[in-house]
Amino acid sequence: MPVHHPTPEPERVASVSRADLVADAAIALLAERGMRGLTHRAVDEAAGLAQGSTSNLARTRQALLELAVRRHAEREAGVLGLGGLPGPEEGVDALARALAGAVHRLLSEERVLVVARYELALEATRRAELREFYDATGARFREALRGTVVGAGSREPERHVLSLVAWADGLMFSCVAGGFGAPSQDEVRDGVRELLRGMLWR
Amino acid sequence: MPVHHPTPEPERVASVSRADLVADAAIALLAERGMRGLTHRAVDEAAGLAQGSTSNLARTRQALLELAVRRHAEREAGVLGLGGLPGPEEGVDALARALAGAVHRLLSEERVLVVARYELALEATRRAELREFYDATGARFREALRGTVVGAGSREPERHVLSLVAWADGLMFSCVAGGFGAPSQDEVRDGVRELLRGMLWR
Repeated sequence: MPVHHPTPEPERVASVSRADLVADAAIALLAERGMRGLTHRAVDEAAGLAQGSTSNLARTRQALLELAVRRHAEREAGVLGLGGLPGPEEGVDALARALAGAVHRLLSEERVLVVARYELALEATRRAELREFYDATGARFREALRGTVVGAGSREPERHVLSLVAWADGLMFSCVAGGFGAPSQDEVRDGVRELLRGMLWR
Repeated sequence: MPVHHPTPEPERVASVSRADLVADAAIALLAERGMRGLTHRAVDEAAGLAQGSTSNLARTRQALLELAVRRHAEREAGVLGLGGLPGPEEGVDALARALAGAVHRLLSEERVLVVARYELALEATRRAELREFYDATGARFREALRGTVVGAGSREPERHVLSLVAWADGLMFSCVAGGFGAPSQDEVRDGVRELLRGMLWR
């Protein structure tokens, strides 16, 4: 059973950033060693914390995974620049540039986030609670993208959102794990533009 | 050190199908429990073999993973119907139908293969030997696809092969692990067609 400690204000602030430290260590371990390498003890070590620290924050494996998913969504949103998706009035080229920029940034600067997300998504196929949690964090991005493709003239926004997300996700997967070399940002943009052109063609 | 047993012919035949049995059990475990759930002992149990049988066939974890990758490629090629990709003269619609059929078959009948492949691909990011092995098994499909897109009029076949593979892979990932519902075969075909149309548009 977790023990309830009444926590004074400064302590609570410190424990918030400790949660991020633990979550970041978990994300790094997932990318580097996979789901097998993620243990409470390994997180303690990777985060440079005393043994037991991770267990104090996230007692169960499920809690640790949720901490990682939540932090991952935060960091990924930072890279994607959510809210930074262009408005419908900015047109298809602006959307292609924005998506290509996000994909390219993830591939070149945040490879750890990319690999860790696939690990978390696969684990969510085996844990209903994580599934729910994972899907909720993805919904915000899809909603934003949906608005943009509708504005661009899509007549089948559900299918087109899936198609765009799938393409971007699959491209990152192919590059980090599928044995393809990483494309340049221009190549990514050309690819998104082709997909959008095919979707919106009349 | 592995001990060399001179094996009479009938035994050798039996041991070939035993390798498939072990590999299939490994693939099923990967899909069901992830890389954490794959151990020699769990494979023995899942395959209904005496303890130690898997170790006799594949002494190291690397050997077991290679066995799984090889068998996986065989089974996937069966579903994809390699050699069954339409020839360049059959046009873009035939290619869209063929790819959509393969993706839809994998999603509806061979979900285990889909999930297991992502597990193996991610593990290959951590094991150079597995990487080499994994990439070699994928090369055959890409070569066939390259011939078809060149025939269809692609001026950038490398980028377009990546784009198609990424889209198909990402779609399967989104459906098995990303929280999207599985699309119908017609929806998959519409998606491939849009992508091809965008690529080949002049």
